[in-house]
Amino acid sequence: MDKTISNCKKLMLLVCSGLMALNCFGQQALGQRARVQSPIVNNDGTVTFNLFAPSAQRVSVSGDFNEIRSQSLPMTKQDNGVWTVTTGQLNPELYSYSFSIDGQRFIDPANSYVNRDISTLSNIFIVSKSNDDKGHLYGVNNVPHGMLSRVWYDSPTLGQQRRMTVYLPAAYDGKKRFPVMYLLHGHGGDETSWGDLGRTSQIMDNLIAEGKAVPMIVVMPNGNPTCNAAPGWWHEGMYTPDGNAFNQRGAKASMEESFMDIVKYIDSHYMTIAKRSGRAVTGLSMGGGHTFGISRLYPDQFDYYGLQSAAARVQQNNEQFDSQMQRLFASKPKLYWIAIGKDDFLMQSNTQLRSYLDSHSYPYEYYENDGGHIWRNWRIYLTLFAQKIFKQ
Amino acid sequence: MDKTISNCKKLMLLVCSGLMALNCFGQQALGQRARVQSPIVNNDGTVTFNLFAPSAQRVSVSGDFNEIRSQSLPMTKQDNGVWTVTTGQLNPELYSYSFSIDGQRFIDPANSYVNRDISTLSNIFIVSKSNDDKGHLYGVNNVPHGMLSRVWYDSPTLGQQRRMTVYLPAAYDGKKRFPVMYLLHGHGGDETSWGDLGRTSQIMDNLIAEGKAVPMIVVMPNGNPTCNAAPGWWHEGMYTPDGNAFNQRGAKASMEESFMDIVKYIDSHYMTIAKRSGRAVTGLSMGGGHTFGISRLYPDQFDYYGLQSAAARVQQNNEQFDSQMQRLFASKPKLYWIAIGKDDFLMQSNTQLRSYLDSHSYPYEYYENDGGHIWRNWRIYLTLFAQKIFKQ
Repeated sequence: MDKTISNCKKLMLLVCSGLMALNCFGQQALGQRARVQSPIVNNDGTVTFNLFAPSAQRVSVSGDFNEIRSQSLPMTKQDNGVWTVTTGQLNPELYSYSFSIDGQRFIDPANSYVNRDISTLSNIFIVSKSNDDKGHLYGVNNVPHGMLSRVWYDSPTLGQQRRMTVYLPAAYDGKKRFPVMYLLHGHGGDETSWGDLGRTSQIMDNLIAEGKAVPMIVVMPNGNPTCNAAPGWWHEGMYTPDGNAFNQRGAKASMEESFMDIVKYIDSHYMTIAKRSGRAVTGLSMGGGHTFGISRLYPDQFDYYGLQSAAARVQQNNEQFDSQMQRLFASKPKLYWIAIGKDDFLMQSNTQLRSYLDSHSYPYEYYENDGGHIWRNWRIYLTLFAQKIFKQ
Repeated sequence: MDKTISNCKKLMLLVCSGLMALNCFGQQALGQRARVQSPIVNNDGTVTFNLFAPSAQRVSVSGDFNEIRSQSLPMTKQDNGVWTVTTGQLNPELYSYSFSIDGQRFIDPANSYVNRDISTLSNIFIVSKSNDDKGHLYGVNNVPHGMLSRVWYDSPTLGQQRRMTVYLPAAYDGKKRFPVMYLLHGHGGDETSWGDLGRTSQIMDNLIAEGKAVPMIVVMPNGNPTCNAAPGWWHEGMYTPDGNAFNQRGAKASMEESFMDIVKYIDSHYMTIAKRSGRAVTGLSMGGGHTFGISRLYPDQFDYYGLQSAAARVQQNNEQFDSQMQRLFASKPKLYWIAIGKDDFLMQSNTQLRSYLDSHSYPYEYYENDGGHIWRNWRIYLTLFAQKIFKQ
C-alpha cells in the first residue's frame, strides 16, 4: 500500500473529530441521542419500538403489522422519558410504521429508512427468518444487482418530457436482448412508487438470481399525464403532493393513449425483444385500470397482462368496449392474470369483470388472497407475475 | 379520446374515495392533519414553520439559516397546539432543517422532502427570488434533464461488486462522446450524497442548459472501500449508518488505489472522451483527500483537479511524496483548484498544502469563501468547478 496514502488515515481521524466537534448543520447529528435504538427486531420475531418524548401525553405506533389493516399500538412511558412497546411475533415481511404523539404523526428519529407514499413518509424495517421467506425476497442479498435509472423521455402524444424508472437486469450487457415488463403505479403514485414501496429491484434481483424469473427489463413510468415526474423532480417545484394536485388540468391524452410513446422509447434505447412475446404489462389499482385499457387498445403488442387490485370496469351495453374485448380475446395473449385481495374495495368491479370474461369463456387466470388495497399485496402480485412471464 | 377509456375516470373517483375511506396503512394518510402547513416561504423572503405538538414543553427549529453555522430558533405555542416561528429574511439557497421537541430531534411531518446525511434525515426547502440565484440553480427548472443511474460495477482491486451514481447529460445519445467529471463524497457519505445533498443533477442540468458548463458525464462513486453501497442498498441490511461502521474492517486497497477500476468501467460502458483532456476529478473533505491522492498516483490520467475543503496533508520530509508531487507538477494539468471556507477546520492543512505548492512555484488556483465544512459550500464549489473544466 502506498505509504503516503495510508498516512491520509491520520488526517481522517482529524476529519472525524472535526465533524464531531463542529456545530455545522447535518454532520453534527453524529453525536445525537443515539442511545435510543428503534426499531429492534428481536430474536423471537417480536419488534420493539422506542421513542424519547418526555412531555407527551399519548404515544402510539401505527403500522401494517396485521395482515388486513393498519394496527395502532399504545406505547408506555418509562422513567427516562422513552416510550416503548413490543409487538407480538411478526411474520417475515417488509413493514411500514410511524409514531403518533398526542395526535400528530411523526416518523421514528432513530430509523433513517423511509418510504414516501404520496405526501406521507413512513419508516420501514424487514423481518426475515430464512432464505426463502418474503423478508429475504424484499431484502438486498449478496447476489448480482440490476441497474436502476431515472430516465427522461419525450412523449409526443402528451407534448412533454417525462421521467420514468428503468431496471436493467445484472446480465444486461448491451449485446443480448431482454424482454420488458411495464409496471404501472396507482392513484397518487409516480415513477418512484414501485421501486420504493414495491421493492421492485430487490424482488427482481432475488428472483432472477434464484432462477425463478427470467432476466428482464422493468419499466416503471409515471402514470399521471398531467405531471412530468414525481414531486420535486419537475419544474412545479417542491409542492405538497396530494395525489389530485394536477387532476384539474386537462391532459392532452390519457395514460393508455400515450403509452406506446414509452414502448417506442424503450425499444429504441435498450436491447429489447421488441415484439409481443417480449412484452408484459401489469399495474396496481389505477395502473391495473391502465393495464386493462392497454390490453383493449393494443392487443397485438403484449403477450402478458397482470391486473392487480385493478380499477377495471366492464362497460355495460357499450359496443366499442365489446368489440375491443373481442379483439383482445381473438389476439390470444399467453397470460391474462387478475389478482385481488378478499378485502379490496374494488372486489365488486373485479368480480363483474371476471363474470364478463367467464360469459365469453375467456381463459384468464385468477389469484385471490387475504387483505385489501395495500402494498403488501402488490409486492406479492409482482413476485407471482414476474415468475409467470417470458418462460415460453 | 377513446370513450371507454374516458369512462375509467368514473372508476377513478371510486378509487379516490375508496382510498380516503380505507384504514389500510400508507394511503389513509391522505386525510391526516393537512391543516398544518410547513414550511411556508413567505413573499417577503421570511419562512414560517408550524408544528402541532400540544403537550410539548419546548419546541425549536434548527437549520442552516445562517451563513456560518446552524441556527436554532425557539418556537411559540399557539392556543390550537401548533408551535410556530418565522425566520428573518433568508437569502436564495437550499435550506435544511429539523425540529426539536423537548430535546428530541424530529423531521417536519408536513414536509415530505428530506435528505439523509449519514443516519440523519433533515427536511429541505428552497428560497429563490430570481432566475439567476442559487435557489433557481438548485431547483428543477423547465430545461432538458440528464439521466441518473445507480450502476453496479466490478472492482477487481477491491474484490467487490460496488454501486455508484452516474449522471448522463440530456444530450447523451450513445453516439457523441462526452468528458467525465468524477465527483467524490466525504467521510460518512456514499454514492447518494452528491446527488441528494449536493443537488448535482439539478446544478448540472441548469448550468448546461444555460451554456455555463459543457455537457459532461458525472460519476459519483462510493468512497468507502469497506462498503459496497449506501446503507440499505447492499447485503449488510438496514443497519444504522454511523459513518464509521465498517472502518475496522480491512480493505483490500484504498479508494485511491482502486480508483482506476471505476475509470475503466466508465470508459468501457459509456461514450466518454477516454483520455486525460476528457477527465476531471474533484471531491469534498475525505473526497478532496482522495482527489489529492489520485492527482499524485495517476498524474497523466486527469487534466482537472478540484480539492474542496480537502482532507489533504503535505507529508513533510517524505521522499515518495515529494517525487509524486514532482511528477504531478511535471504533468502540467490544466487546472489544480483548491477551495475552502474561512471557517473550515481543515484550513490549516490546506494552508500548508498551498505553502508547499507556492514553494515549488506551482500555479494552482485558489478560492476562499465564508463558512466552514458544510454542504452549502460544496454546492458552490461544484457550481464553480463545473464551469471551469473541459472548455479548452
